Amino acid sequence: MKLKKLKQVRVPGFLAGGVACGLKKKGVKDLALIVSEVPATAAGVFTLNQVVSPTVPISRKALQTSKTSRAIIVNSGNANAFTGKQGVKDCQAVVAATAKALGIPVKEVLTASTGVISVPLAVNKIEASIPRLVNQLSPKGWVQAAEGILTTDLVSKTCAVQYGDVVVGGIAKGSGMIQPNMATMLAFLASNIRIGKSALHKALKEAVDPTFNCITVDGETSTNDMVLLLANGTAGNPSVKAGSKAYRDFVTALTHVCKTLAFKVVEDGEGATKFVTFKVSGAKTKQQAERIGKRLANSLLVKTALFGEDPNWGRIIAAVGNAGVPIKPEKLEVVLNGTRLVKNGEHVKGVSASALRKKMKNKEIEIAVGLHLGKASAETYTCDLSYNYVRINAEYTT
Amino acid sequence: MKLKKLKQVRVPGFLAGGVACGLKKKGVKDLALIVSEVPATAAGVFTLNQVVSPTVPISRKALQTSKTSRAIIVNSGNANAFTGKQGVKDCQAVVAATAKALGIPVKEVLTASTGVISVPLAVNKIEASIPRLVNQLSPKGWVQAAEGILTTDLVSKTCAVQYGDVVVGGIAKGSGMIQPNMATMLAFLASNIRIGKSALHKALKEAVDPTFNCITVDGETSTNDMVLLLANGTAGNPSVKAGSKAYRDFVTALTHVCKTLAFKVVEDGEGATKFVTFKVSGAKTKQQAERIGKRLANSLLVKTALFGEDPNWGRIIAAVGNAGVPIKPEKLEVVLNGTRLVKNGEHVKGVSASALRKKMKNKEIEIAVGLHLGKASAETYTCDLSYNYVRINAEYTT
Repeated sequence: MKLKKLKQVRVPGFLAGGVACGLKKKGVKDLALIVSEVPATAAGVFTLNQVVSPTVPISRKALQTSKTSRAIIVNSGNANAFTGKQGVKDCQAVVAATAKALGIPVKEVLTASTGVISVPLAVNKIEASIPRLVNQLSPKGWVQAAEGILTTDLVSKTCAVQYGDVVVGGIAKGSGMIQPNMATMLAFLASNIRIGKSALHKALKEAVDPTFNCITVDGETSTNDMVLLLANGTAGNPSVKAGSKAYRDFVTALTHVCKTLAFKVVEDGEGATKFVTFKVSGAKTKQQAERIGKRLANSLLVKTALFGEDPNWGRIIAAVGNAGVPIKPEKLEVVLNGTRLVKNGEHVKGVSASALRKKMKNKEIEIAVGLHLGKASAETYTCDLSYNYVRINAEYTT
Repeated sequence: MKLKKLKQVRVPGFLAGGVACGLKKKGVKDLALIVSEVPATAAGVFTLNQVVSPTVPISRKALQTSKTSRAIIVNSGNANAFTGKQGVKDCQAVVAATAKALGIPVKEVLTASTGVISVPLAVNKIEASIPRLVNQLSPKGWVQAAEGILTTDLVSKTCAVQYGDVVVGGIAKGSGMIQPNMATMLAFLASNIRIGKSALHKALKEAVDPTFNCITVDGETSTNDMVLLLANGTAGNPSVKAGSKAYRDFVTALTHVCKTLAFKVVEDGEGATKFVTFKVSGAKTKQQAERIGKRLANSLLVKTALFGEDPNWGRIIAAVGNAGVPIKPEKLEVVLNGTRLVKNGEHVKGVSASALRKKMKNKEIEIAVGLHLGKASAETYTCDLSYNYVRINAEYTT
């Protein structure tokens, strides 16, 4: 199976668009809509935070009660989280207005929000703008939709691939508050493949686990995180069964799109100056490898050392020893961008400090940690912690 | 029992001192010594990090093998951590030189180090300076000792109290890498009370749990953390038995000293501009209350909001929902410096935003979170996350 990367997102049978409705600064897009021209199967994964925006239960319920879905309406600028009973009504109103403008059942509309928490949603602005948004929907509108879902992101994030007649494409937003657990930030994916609902959900889980669920910017899981996927069957293939060759091909393509979008989220992490991959190997279980990877990726001392371009393997080792996973310090190995710094738990002599410092100036840093206790491994992707992360989050207020 | 706070640390029967031996910049004190004039009982609590400086097993073993202890030798500027077999030899050499200069058995010497990780210790500089340090020991020397154990700390930290004939005093250093678990940063405590070794250890645990173990600066547990306590019996009291009135009084005094030193560590946290207390109540278990408190205190989004003086209760609620403890969002209550912001999971209407912003300008912030699920509670103390934390840790290199 050969995967062709597409320069622009266009998924047969899907329309998209984005407009400025007034939730953000004047003229900045803050409302996005993705619509399938025919009923599509749909799947979603959601935040594990116990405190959630009403968009989470409302979208989850729509997925459970309807066999098909048609639209995803998303606003940025306001997360509609911790807004009480009014927040639930507001979310329902947005869904209802979207269904009405598109002439489809309410249960076929999925929804997401992102932005400040605890501020009531200016639902009238959204309602007033939905007809205009519907009017400008087009097959090329993913660019506008991708802009419409951003918050402190600096760039919009899109990806699409094709194999045979099947296209898989999507958009995402991230920036801060990124520590996935099940769902992560927001991502909306679409394909023209024909696939049953349960196989679609399985494929989404398989694609999200090693991608969106392996990135972290700041260890925070938001109240609004979700990844939604629609598949409208217009490719005309025989319906894909879980476990088949066609299913594996679809998962490969979907995983590629998810990984590309996830990496773009990390690269655009708040204040990020580095893209960092932690490869933990030799663990007894995958879960333990992941736990150490997450500990490394969320360690303030490791993240600030990365920002300072300091090859501070002492902090790496200290974080590994502090991840709550039993290790044998005397077996530890650390390799930084190809150079082995630590072997059998001891500093490798003769490694040039100046050569190491030079490696740290790379934008991409790979730190491999070998535990030598078992055969499980995991990768975690993150960025560094800079002045700008603090500035953005000290100034970004309710 | 009336506790008298002493302006200066002086503990009957103890001598202390600090000198510059050349590990840090010229003339900056980096070697400290505390000596009991007579054999003392001793107790210690140590880091839970699995990767440790040899000072940790060497001090732990000395406590286990010797009934009495006489001296604590501490260097700053170099943590002697992850320095391999040479690090163990170097640590033993420091202990041996101290024992020799004082004319006491090696097993009566406890030791600690703090500073950069993974750099070999310039043990010759320490050995050369120990005789000079021993010569300048004095009852008033705690001030110099407190200076000699600092790293990025801005101020030295001391505390002493008296009740009846009993004096309890000590010094501490902290700054970054502060997330206690068992032991915490470095603290060295002394008393003239007469008390058996096991009762002393019990008292230390009781005093450390609600103080040093409830502070966090950045969620990091170092390779070198320890708290040591010597009691030399020169007060002449009948030996204190665990559980007695005399024991309770001692624990009260010891807890006061530990709390004062712990608070000074938080106040002087790297880049700190705020002292923040999280009071979590209504939890089902104390452990769950502590877990939520730690999650709040280590949340980058909460810490940056505190630095930005932003009354961002949405981030507080999101962190509570994300602590891995089952909660009922609809029961949550949040009180910020006396003002109730959230009740029954909803924003309290009519709270003036400008009044809230004014409260956030206080140097001391208290955030109470009510879960309304049970009767357990816990307090966690922390500071905010500022540009300076990033600067200090991006620039403080191996």
